[in-house]
Amino acid sequence: MKTFITDDFLLQNKTARALYHDYAESAPIFDYHCHLDPQQILENTRFPTITHAWLMDDHYKWRLMRANGVPEQFVTGNADPKEKFFHWADTISRAIGNPLYHWSNLELLRYFGIDTLLTPDTAQEIWETANARLLREEMRVRSLIVKSNVKKICTTDDPIDSLEVHRKLKTEFPEVQILPTFRTDRVLHPELPGCAEYLRKLNPDLSCMEDLKATLSSRAAYFAEHGCVLADQSMDAPDFTCRDAIIAETALQKILKGEPLSDYEYNCYQTELTFFLGELYCRHGFTMQLHLCVTRNLNTALFERRGVDMGGDAIGASISSKSLVALLDGLAKKGTLPKTILYPLNPADTTRLMTLCGSFQEGNIRSKLQVGSAWWFNDHKEGIEAHLTAFANTGILSSFIGMLTDSRSFLSYARHEYFRRVLCNLLGTWAEDGLLPNHLPYLGKIVNDICYNNACSYFGQ
Amino acid sequence: MKTFITDDFLLQNKTARALYHDYAESAPIFDYHCHLDPQQILENTRFPTITHAWLMDDHYKWRLMRANGVPEQFVTGNADPKEKFFHWADTISRAIGNPLYHWSNLELLRYFGIDTLLTPDTAQEIWETANARLLREEMRVRSLIVKSNVKKICTTDDPIDSLEVHRKLKTEFPEVQILPTFRTDRVLHPELPGCAEYLRKLNPDLSCMEDLKATLSSRAAYFAEHGCVLADQSMDAPDFTCRDAIIAETALQKILKGEPLSDYEYNCYQTELTFFLGELYCRHGFTMQLHLCVTRNLNTALFERRGVDMGGDAIGASISSKSLVALLDGLAKKGTLPKTILYPLNPADTTRLMTLCGSFQEGNIRSKLQVGSAWWFNDHKEGIEAHLTAFANTGILSSFIGMLTDSRSFLSYARHEYFRRVLCNLLGTWAEDGLLPNHLPYLGKIVNDICYNNACSYFGQ
Amino acid sequence: MKTFITDDFLLQNKTARALYHDYAESAPIFDYHCHLDPQQILENTRFPTITHAWLMDDHYKWRLMRANGVPEQFVTGNADPKEKFFHWADTISRAIGNPLYHWSNLELLRYFGIDTLLTPDTAQEIWETANARLLREEMRVRSLIVKSNVKKICTTDDPIDSLEVHRKLKTEFPEVQILPTFRTDRVLHPELPGCAEYLRKLNPDLSCMEDLKATLSSRAAYFAEHGCVLADQSMDAPDFTCRDAIIAETALQKILKGEPLSDYEYNCYQTELTFFLGELYCRHGFTMQLHLCVTRNLNTALFERRGVDMGGDAIGASISSKSLVALLDGLAKKGTLPKTILYPLNPADTTRLMTLCGSFQEGNIRSKLQVGSAWWFNDHKEGIEAHLTAFANTGILSSFIGMLTDSRSFLSYARHEYFRRVLCNLLGTWAEDGLLPNHLPYLGKIVNDICYNNACSYFGQ
Repeated sequence: MKTFITDDFLLQNKTARALYHDYAESAPIFDYHCHLDPQQILENTRFPTITHAWLMDDHYKWRLMRANGVPEQFVTGNADPKEKFFHWADTISRAIGNPLYHWSNLELLRYFGIDTLLTPDTAQEIWETANARLLREEMRVRSLIVKSNVKKICTTDDPIDSLEVHRKLKTEFPEVQILPTFRTDRVLHPELPGCAEYLRKLNPDLSCMEDLKATLSSRAAYFAEHGCVLADQSMDAPDFTCRDAIIAETALQKILKGEPLSDYEYNCYQTELTFFLGELYCRHGFTMQLHLCVTRNLNTALFERRGVDMGGDAIGASISSKSLVALLDGLAKKGTLPKTILYPLNPADTTRLMTLCGSFQEGNIRSKLQVGSAWWFNDHKEGIEAHLTAFANTGILSSFIGMLTDSRSFLSYARHEYFRRVLCNLLGTWAEDGLLPNHLPYLGKIVNDICYNNACSYFGQ
Repeated sequence: MKTFITDDFLLQNKTARALYHDYAESAPIFDYHCHLDPQQILENTRFPTITHAWLMDDHYKWRLMRANGVPEQFVTGNADPKEKFFHWADTISRAIGNPLYHWSNLELLRYFGIDTLLTPDTAQEIWETANARLLREEMRVRSLIVKSNVKKICTTDDPIDSLEVHRKLKTEFPEVQILPTFRTDRVLHPELPGCAEYLRKLNPDLSCMEDLKATLSSRAAYFAEHGCVLADQSMDAPDFTCRDAIIAETALQKILKGEPLSDYEYNCYQTELTFFLGELYCRHGFTMQLHLCVTRNLNTALFERRGVDMGGDAIGASISSKSLVALLDGLAKKGTLPKTILYPLNPADTTRLMTLCGSFQEGNIRSKLQVGSAWWFNDHKEGIEAHLTAFANTGILSSFIGMLTDSRSFLSYARHEYFRRVLCNLLGTWAEDGLLPNHLPYLGKIVNDICYNNACSYFGQ
Repeated sequence: MKTFITDDFLLQNKTARALYHDYAESAPIFDYHCHLDPQQILENTRFPTITHAWLMDDHYKWRLMRANGVPEQFVTGNADPKEKFFHWADTISRAIGNPLYHWSNLELLRYFGIDTLLTPDTAQEIWETANARLLREEMRVRSLIVKSNVKKICTTDDPIDSLEVHRKLKTEFPEVQILPTFRTDRVLHPELPGCAEYLRKLNPDLSCMEDLKATLSSRAAYFAEHGCVLADQSMDAPDFTCRDAIIAETALQKILKGEPLSDYEYNCYQTELTFFLGELYCRHGFTMQLHLCVTRNLNTALFERRGVDMGGDAIGASISSKSLVALLDGLAKKGTLPKTILYPLNPADTTRLMTLCGSFQEGNIRSKLQVGSAWWFNDHKEGIEAHLTAFANTGILSSFIGMLTDSRSFLSYARHEYFRRVLCNLLGTWAEDGLLPNHLPYLGKIVNDICYNNACSYFGQ
């Protein structure tokens, strides 16, 4: 079977096609949130097989393989790369309607020039063609980035990071701007193993909250010097109404001693630091990203055997409005609310959080607070459309800063193409349904802004 | 650019167009819930500029301007009306997909005869044309109402109101029936500043719950004499399981002394009064409207500077089923459940609340309990369609009492047109998709009932 | 008016029509969850009137009649069957967009050969035709099952059931496999009247949790011997984090004495038993069905007058992720997680629960954990499409085990037809929109698998 990915994939009407081909297609990419490894960019990694490019580090695919009844050995185990690929071929051929079905076949076409649908029947042929292709210079990491028309990348980095690699990339790979992001998860999640050790590594003299704050300040300044413009943290349903500096201090002491925290202590600790970080980000002009409603490492057996990011995560509890208001209003009252992007993982929360954002818009930054792009479990046609529609209904869609990959894979830039096609199709449909003026330059400008320009001006790049 | 508002705006198929033009378009309007100022109707206000008509009292627009990075001075500040209008023109030209984009251009066409899209480029011309038009007699408040084919209006009034204005309107503006609504928010929200003073103004001798209830009884009777058929209250996520008359009394005493309430006292106070009011409404045949999941005045800086209804509100927590069941079942058990309309602000709650309503339907009133029209943040094409679809799936859509404006603006009757187009388009689509008998008189009757007749019979008018 | 049910009802494009008519239409039915009364099958019941077939036992219809203002006498009271039918005719003719509108007219056409729309005008004629038809042999219960191409049925049975009827059916009605399901609701819901008596009937010597577990074990083994492959329980929002065997024991003692339980005791009791049952089901290869977010008997007056399953139920609170993870992870850690189907009644939970399932997929069973078919208040076109789309987006749709009726009515097999048409229409639309390869044999196989084959292999039948 031939692939279903045509030039007009996802573009279901004339206006959509014009918007995509005349505007979106050639717009550069600013991938302002991803988990690419800068070291791989520095080394300009070459992947020996498509299994290495696709299946070594992708918990999205692992989950789907497990759902398909594939034994763990062929998922994250030490089975032969070829066998893994064949299991993946069987899995994906059954996953109609799943975004991975679209992404995988799109990546095969765009990066490997393969226009055959991936199924058990075509797996052998595709295995050979893809691996042969991977020998080419154009399939090394840097070429993939350049070929994808990526101009700016923000990686995700621990405050402890020396940013050595970023510094080197600046001179060795100047074609693309690669900036660090200040991601404080290991500070904010004392429930993760090794937190005390980590904190002591971050600052060997750390003995109290003040020390921790001073250290974070100095690391943020260091990141700022290296071009950082974003911060990030991932949380489930933090309770920012638990604001008590003394309890937060107690919590830190317990963490350092390896003692367990009560729920209240845990919440006070996260709250105290999030307020502190918010002010810090405001000062540095960082955008604060909050990834919310994420519940991680649910499958204890899997976690104990394999660790984090193995596909044992899910959509968690919704964050309460009370909690989020406590944070946003607390910061706004003091004039220290940074640019903020909320990413609720539960799609039922998008509209509610958009209306919260709307209550705190201020200053001369367009859509200073935004609900970020549909991500992870929502990064599919329906999820993207639902997000864009909710954004439009409750805010100003034309100042949305657009798509990000949130990915560990260098092939995942295809998701920007995917997003853009969905965006153009949605606007094209609205226009052809008479809900908008059907005026291409007017809509085309909005498309280009969402694809690239808004992110540049929002992040000041 | 010309406006995109055509005769067939939102009507995407033949049946939809027939239903709208042959049935809905000419149906009168019963605007049973709005925030129009009866004094303005009495005075037959004329607006000096379109800024006065559009931007002086509309927190929907203010929020959008803030999201567009417009400084507060041009939003609610004392900037020149013309400058404000130009900022609004810029804002709305970017807000594609937002209901205000539709409403604003629809109002320009319907009331001002302007068929040019509002953008920064056309702002000057529209400013002049619109203001010239506002000089005409037909643009005064009463003419706008009559021209919009409005037959009945229920305003929103405080129990303390003398209803003097309503009385005068009865003789001075008999063309339209203008009825008061009993809205007890200032009684039910002790967290609002000035609650004790308000209660003492309501009844200078008030010293206990019994007094308060007696006062509310007598005010409700007074409202009933003046034609009142609806009551209303707005709440976040009240906990109606907290039923304790003694604690409620304690709470009232604290309120009168200006002392703060515990959460439990607050809930008992609201619960005690809501039960009392429910019975009262049942006796008077009032419909009880509950506006739920609203969290207000979130932005403290804005609230302290400007007060309530400034655009600092959002979708709040969902009301628990347990809480709502406690109220509905508590009233139903005693045979004192009034006609009830639930308006959850969180769109994720519509279906759940429809199923709760379905458990308490009784008597010979069609759809005695209903989930009300999509409102505020949900009052857009997708929101209206989602509400109508959920209503149809879990109830009897043909007895839905239809649209209301919930608005402070005399131009907002365009929203009834908007709703009717969406309704006709939805039914037309169902019919053309073969989901319904495509029989115009059958569907047209349902359309007319939802547009006007159902509200008349439901409210006994 | 003629019915709107055509051969291509719900099939809006060519691919959809081909998928339905060439694949789905002739696939057999495995109705793995229903509430049919096996005794009626054994007796091969004949219904004297259409009121007996439709309105004697169907709380879906009763709710709709109450919403239509029909007095209770004509709903569940002792009014004349014909009068009841006429009230139903009026009700359904108004319920456009409600799934009952579709189902009722579909059942009239398929089982009664009536292609006239049911309205007050046609009620007399349909009453006569339908009742005449019911005299025919082909309208007795067994014929209805066979005619509907049903091959396997899983009824819903109390652990106390002797399964005598199932045993007899095996020899007396061998054409169809009729298996029992182990439904422990009366054990798990001490809030229901008569729980202590029930437990003592289940085991006259029952004095502690160990006894209860032993009894359940032996009953499950007995059910297994009789071909049982599924278990089921219905809950609101159980808290499976409340795990304390001692408190659970205390709770049981209180239940046996008829004493009320605290919330914590109630939760510990349900949790202790659910863990025990999960392990038991794993051992027997039973699939564990959890019907969640159901809040029942809300209308006290109705409940006291009429009892359970009278139409006083609704969508309840969402189950927390924490709770569900406690159960799934607790079982998975010990290697005792059975095949599990989660049925959240709140449609806003489908995606979240799918992602939870995705974290626990294991072994060589395809989609070992699934979110089950849209049911009860969600069993309509939009609900089915939303469920299928969420399933596809977050899992492997082609291993979904498909539709069930969950019904007490022998005419309700029409709902399988309804589901299949929606399924084919959705896949057909995706294919024609270029989101899938438009290759009929490929898609047709998936359709057939979802319609029948997947359930057979998942349940090992």
